[in-house]
Amino acid sequence: MFEVHGFAAKDATSDLVPYTFSRRDVGASDIHIEILYSGICHSDLHQARNDWGNAPAENFPMVPGHEIVGRVVAVGPNVKKFKVGDLAGVGCMVDSCRECESCKRDLEQYCQVHTSFTYNGTEQDRKTVTQGGYSTAIVVEERFAVKISEKLDLKAVAPLLCAGITTYSPLRHWKVGPGQKVGVIGLGGLGHMGVKFAKAMGAHVTMITTSPSKGDDAKKLGADAVLISTDAEAMQKAASSFDFLLNTVPVSHDINPYTSLLKLDGTMVLVGALTPLDGVIGGSLMLPRRTIAGSAIGGMAETQEMMDFCAEHNIVSDIELVDMASINETYKRLVKNDVRYRFVIDMATMPKG
Amino acid sequence: MFEVHGFAAKDATSDLVPYTFSRRDVGASDIHIEILYSGICHSDLHQARNDWGNAPAENFPMVPGHEIVGRVVAVGPNVKKFKVGDLAGVGCMVDSCRECESCKRDLEQYCQVHTSFTYNGTEQDRKTVTQGGYSTAIVVEERFAVKISEKLDLKAVAPLLCAGITTYSPLRHWKVGPGQKVGVIGLGGLGHMGVKFAKAMGAHVTMITTSPSKGDDAKKLGADAVLISTDAEAMQKAASSFDFLLNTVPVSHDINPYTSLLKLDGTMVLVGALTPLDGVIGGSLMLPRRTIAGSAIGGMAETQEMMDFCAEHNIVSDIELVDMASINETYKRLVKNDVRYRFVIDMATMPKG
Repeated sequence: MFEVHGFAAKDATSDLVPYTFSRRDVGASDIHIEILYSGICHSDLHQARNDWGNAPAENFPMVPGHEIVGRVVAVGPNVKKFKVGDLAGVGCMVDSCRECESCKRDLEQYCQVHTSFTYNGTEQDRKTVTQGGYSTAIVVEERFAVKISEKLDLKAVAPLLCAGITTYSPLRHWKVGPGQKVGVIGLGGLGHMGVKFAKAMGAHVTMITTSPSKGDDAKKLGADAVLISTDAEAMQKAASSFDFLLNTVPVSHDINPYTSLLKLDGTMVLVGALTPLDGVIGGSLMLPRRTIAGSAIGGMAETQEMMDFCAEHNIVSDIELVDMASINETYKRLVKNDVRYRFVIDMATMPKG
Repeated sequence: MFEVHGFAAKDATSDLVPYTFSRRDVGASDIHIEILYSGICHSDLHQARNDWGNAPAENFPMVPGHEIVGRVVAVGPNVKKFKVGDLAGVGCMVDSCRECESCKRDLEQYCQVHTSFTYNGTEQDRKTVTQGGYSTAIVVEERFAVKISEKLDLKAVAPLLCAGITTYSPLRHWKVGPGQKVGVIGLGGLGHMGVKFAKAMGAHVTMITTSPSKGDDAKKLGADAVLISTDAEAMQKAASSFDFLLNTVPVSHDINPYTSLLKLDGTMVLVGALTPLDGVIGGSLMLPRRTIAGSAIGGMAETQEMMDFCAEHNIVSDIELVDMASINETYKRLVKNDVRYRFVIDMATMPKG
């Protein structure tokens, strides 16, 4: 065991404060990563405040953070993928059963036994509480870390570990590519990555947003077209024209106007809204035949594939670097959506001791 | 033009009464079918009463009926598929644009221009109101009629034209077959056909119903297992275990308990509920990745394929034959779900003149 510095919520009502805790020693298949940057996902704030009711008291103090990048400073004797000095990333998971059908298919996020989430979760013993990336170091089994190209701007790589893979995975699973008309609904941390990936995969990309100013931003990110969802006439004109919709809206909302945009056999994938969607109209899924699905992050093999895709296409997130000590102010800005498009903590700013 | 006898709702508040009206003369590509049997679909009642708000005043008097079987008594000079004396069936459509992408893919039900529904619709001129199968004869372009094997019990074939194809099409589209665990939700006109088809396609079939007595019935129809959806413990045990669910519930309902039954990459297809489904939980589509879709009847080529499949596997509906004059009483029984599983009108009982 060794000591690391971090920031934690002491309970679901507290601000984040400096917190010193222990990481396990490096096991035979583990790597020890010195964390250089940690992205801030909106879900960090929801979990630190137990907004979703999934944060039991024993998970506090809670160190959030699941968009972790840094440099390998030690490796166990059985480690094959990494050597000391390599860049490495850790996302939303740090372990899974590794034996169920999902794990065997490299879909550890859908582990049928127990996925160990990076924080606000437990290790495979179901007891040891996990702690996340708002900290100076992490120790993780090598399967749950990915290699990162030295070519990319490392601080802007951090959000790929959650916002990136969450959007990349469904675009790949539903085989988005050239000749397809793809819509990305909502322009935030997820949406801006969705635009970049869909474009790099060769699709015609439309940003679908309530806000004309976000439309302009989306074009700068590579979107071919903008559809303002509050413009009834434009929405009517676009009816039944999309092959695929990536819905990144993070809250409950009326999805029917978007469903109507799908053509025959088109699919809308939800990656943001975990909560109930009211009044999904059955008939609008029938005439014509349309599909709604959900998708959660991606497996470790696919996360590596995404990292390699990013290196090949020079894709990173658009970020704003912040200091560790400003975290509570940064959360306030996050609540106001005052971010384009992801905050990333510079771990060099961590107060030591 | 020639005169036919039928039964019609004079307006949305009226009982059905005898009604004499005209059919078009047999065109070059038309066939004239003497109707022998006409199935009663629950949607007949909803449309005759304008329950869905899709029956404008000009569509009355309305002759319902879109599960039509009979014998060909005349054919136009260009007709290739039928000769006089053949059995023929007509389902929910009598025409479509025939030129759009959907029509070219033999998916006339999803015609992007105008599907002419068999009644409570209009011909391709968008003016001539269509009239359905509660009548002695119909004239239809041969593309919109299917051939029926003499081997099958004709009166029990009628419901295949709607209840049959509505369940057959999604089972085929989503490639249901051996090695798969399929659930059919709801045991009515659609559900009982879903069980028969899924079984004939080689799947392991579970009837999912609120009613233990319907479970027993489903086993007689061929279901391998029964899951009582009000039994929380049984539902919990069955969580994440189904490859495919055919949801035939015809009204708004909470689909979340059923969604939870789907395994990773499993699909639930809605074929009954046209209306809003409240509180569809986004998160339950994400962990694990699950799909909801809709499906409406089937194209004409697929309807013929289904008819041939039925002849091969000796599949027909379970029906109760009723007299034309009892139609209003029959509707009352339909409302009480007092039917196993489809009423069919014996057109020989039509009062003449």
